[in-house]
Amino acid sequence: MTRPQAVIFDVNETLTDMEPLRARFEDVGLPGHLMDTWFASVLRDGFALAAAGGYAEFARIAHDVLRGMSLEDKAIGHVLSGFAELRVHPDVPEGMRKLRESGIRLFTMTNGAAAMTEGILRREGLLDLVEARLDVSGPGVWKPARAAYEYAVGQAGVRPEQAALVAVHPWDIDGAQRAGLVGAYLDRRGTPYPSVLSAPTVSAPDLRALADLWS
Amino acid sequence: MTRPQAVIFDVNETLTDMEPLRARFEDVGLPGHLMDTWFASVLRDGFALAAAGGYAEFARIAHDVLRGMSLEDKAIGHVLSGFAELRVHPDVPEGMRKLRESGIRLFTMTNGAAAMTEGILRREGLLDLVEARLDVSGPGVWKPARAAYEYAVGQAGVRPEQAALVAVHPWDIDGAQRAGLVGAYLDRRGTPYPSVLSAPTVSAPDLRALADLWS
Repeated sequence: MTRPQAVIFDVNETLTDMEPLRARFEDVGLPGHLMDTWFASVLRDGFALAAAGGYAEFARIAHDVLRGMSLEDKAIGHVLSGFAELRVHPDVPEGMRKLRESGIRLFTMTNGAAAMTEGILRREGLLDLVEARLDVSGPGVWKPARAAYEYAVGQAGVRPEQAALVAVHPWDIDGAQRAGLVGAYLDRRGTPYPSVLSAPTVSAPDLRALADLWS
Repeated sequence: MTRPQAVIFDVNETLTDMEPLRARFEDVGLPGHLMDTWFASVLRDGFALAAAGGYAEFARIAHDVLRGMSLEDKAIGHVLSGFAELRVHPDVPEGMRKLRESGIRLFTMTNGAAAMTEGILRREGLLDLVEARLDVSGPGVWKPARAAYEYAVGQAGVRPEQAALVAVHPWDIDGAQRAGLVGAYLDRRGTPYPSVLSAPTVSAPDLRALADLWS
């Protein structure tokens, strides 16, 4: 397929490994498996607001859902502070460098906070590779609403079809493609792709393999 | 508060008790707690489609998410067939009858299937109380998108402000209120209401108590 001019990365789980958060659920007395219910519920509520025409910050929704799991503010703070310490997946640094060396411009666009993305990329020595760190506070609506992708490609100064959205989440691929972007699905877990969502334009097992396709 | 002319019930968890589905996860070799992750994930994907301008049937999304949990078709069928056997919560029959006796018109509007709702209400002897069983195949978009509520009040032949949406899910209350309906929150579990969503116009611990407020 044609190489994109700009690659826009999702952040949570796509660049970062969220597994260390699981131990923090156990630290505050909850079973580790609640991390999965919690993260699905945070996305559920963020998407509900997007569908209904509303908006709230990721951190506030994340806090609300943990409060619904009977945690007090101190315990919630302990769980959420783990976000700032997340590492990127092992394939990310090499994949990002390879894409950048081949002349592709790199961006991030998260339903979380750009400041969090910047802290993580800085610690990993990857911040200089990424031209701009974007988040949904710009358009005031979460991905996968069309306006979130339009905002990202507008900030990058490219047309939707010149940009690829890279994500591990099928709903993000589907939304990007509905907005006219190329969808690039990272399938690190080998899970079946949902039949109800538009199939990705390109798939790869990790970012190194994806970068090879575009180099 | 002013009594509504029409009450529109959400169905899953609001009328029905979904707990018996948990045993079906265990029947097919999954831990029971995966029911919570599964249901949050089904809503997440349905809302993602609604936010992105798409639509799919609840049963297909429910199937996809179970497939992502490594179940085969036969096991998926066993889990999902449990939906048809769900019972309503103990407070529902008396609450519905009291509302109907006070002259309020009753409707259901589900992100699931109206046929499923009808089967459950018929078995419980409640079908005659409910003037029409609606679902999101009509508007082609899931709640909490505004069009789903507009469809429901249109089918009921009332203005949004003459109708109340009754639900246990805060995202449904929030969406209904954004569309101009009265939001009536059933708080059976006593969980904190999310700070990011619009607070309900009226709250009650169950449907009997809500019916008392409007009788």
